Amino acid sequence: MIYQLYYWPGIQGRGEFVRLALEEAGAEYLDVAKDPSGEEQAVRKLQALLNNPKIPRPAFAVPALKAGELVIAQTANILMYLGAHLDLAPQDEAGRLWTQQLQLTIADWIAEIHDTHHPLGPTEYYEDQKAEAGKRTGLFLKHRLPKYLGYFERVLKQNPAGDKFLVGGALTYPDLSLFQIIEGLRYAFPHAMAGSEAKHPGVMALHGRVSRRPRIAAYLASERRIPFNEDGLFRHYPPLDI
Amino acid sequence: MIYQLYYWPGIQGRGEFVRLALEEAGAEYLDVAKDPSGEEQAVRKLQALLNNPKIPRPAFAVPALKAGELVIAQTANILMYLGAHLDLAPQDEAGRLWTQQLQLTIADWIAEIHDTHHPLGPTEYYEDQKAEAGKRTGLFLKHRLPKYLGYFERVLKQNPAGDKFLVGGALTYPDLSLFQIIEGLRYAFPHAMAGSEAKHPGVMALHGRVSRRPRIAAYLASERRIPFNEDGLFRHYPPLDI
Repeated sequence: MIYQLYYWPGIQGRGEFVRLALEEAGAEYLDVAKDPSGEEQAVRKLQALLNNPKIPRPAFAVPALKAGELVIAQTANILMYLGAHLDLAPQDEAGRLWTQQLQLTIADWIAEIHDTHHPLGPTEYYEDQKAEAGKRTGLFLKHRLPKYLGYFERVLKQNPAGDKFLVGGALTYPDLSLFQIIEGLRYAFPHAMAGSEAKHPGVMALHGRVSRRPRIAAYLASERRIPFNEDGLFRHYPPLDI
Repeated sequence: MIYQLYYWPGIQGRGEFVRLALEEAGAEYLDVAKDPSGEEQAVRKLQALLNNPKIPRPAFAVPALKAGELVIAQTANILMYLGAHLDLAPQDEAGRLWTQQLQLTIADWIAEIHDTHHPLGPTEYYEDQKAEAGKRTGLFLKHRLPKYLGYFERVLKQNPAGDKFLVGGALTYPDLSLFQIIEGLRYAFPHAMAGSEAKHPGVMALHGRVSRRPRIAAYLASERRIPFNEDGLFRHYPPLDI
């Protein structure tokens, strides 16, 4: 099966969490954002999928993954599907639910990270909500960042199979997403992260462990990895990083 | 099996989406928020669950559901579990993924509704972010409310099995959650909703259909249904409803 990933061109965004799972598993996929005929054509393909009035199961937004007949949207839902098919999750019900619970907590974290630069919501530019972004980011870095980091540190510590992975003794899809969050936070908030990494050694070790996996390392070094930038989810605005 | 629902006392909040599924299915459950020894005792029980340093799969937040040996958190994850066990979701993989995709879109909508009164995040009181709440709510009512309502209207219209339910021809857990969203939006934003209901007849008809289901109607009329209030997810602040 060749998967097709539909996501906006030019940014990592939420699509990147899906890419990391596909790359780690060595899955074949066609990335619509990197359509050889260019970004405009890629956007037309996305919009054709999103606005199709005949599709029986329309998506609210991308990322969306075509897998044979299926069109699956919502990042955590796509990852749950890939987890089951690409051996990136346990197979028993309790393990599947726990893996998805962690991913949904990561999804909440992602939404809060997005809102640091968009506290008034997704409809206005950052430039039109800078003052509010400053306030929200300050509260995020003071209260929410340590709460989320501390939670995942605790998940690792309380894992009966040891602190190498979030779920049991093998890599699962939320490990890849947690790697991406740390990578993105280091880009967006280097100052704040520098002060907080030492307190969360388990999470930082997991980040390192994921980054050294052969397929992930090859992907990160490739041209397929779009650099972080200020159109994506993780944005480096120096006035916010205090 | 007697389920145990862990959630904050005194509000509907995110716990209500779980309650509606349990009530519709006629499941037996113990609601920790309504602990007979009072709200303080209920909060102590929640905190004991959340802070337990020995639990192998700790939750970031409530709602959490104890189901035998399992402790499941994240509203959409709990609903996926109940959907499978209480016949509130299709059993085939494509149907399960689509049902969960809709629930995750509802989860995003819920987060945006929460942020209308908390645009600076969950750590400060509404009273300390009134000006920002006014701006965010204005943008939400103008752009996001019609986008979400229009999406679910379209899901109903494009459902090959007809427009009575979101998924196929039978009730599933996102139908119950969509009912709750409409109920909550009518409470929070009666003025804005009055102007927008006529444009979304399918969604409003679904809301009515769910409200008349015998177990839901009995639940809504019972003392078990906590009234909406300004500590919950859906808050009626008249200056915001313009």
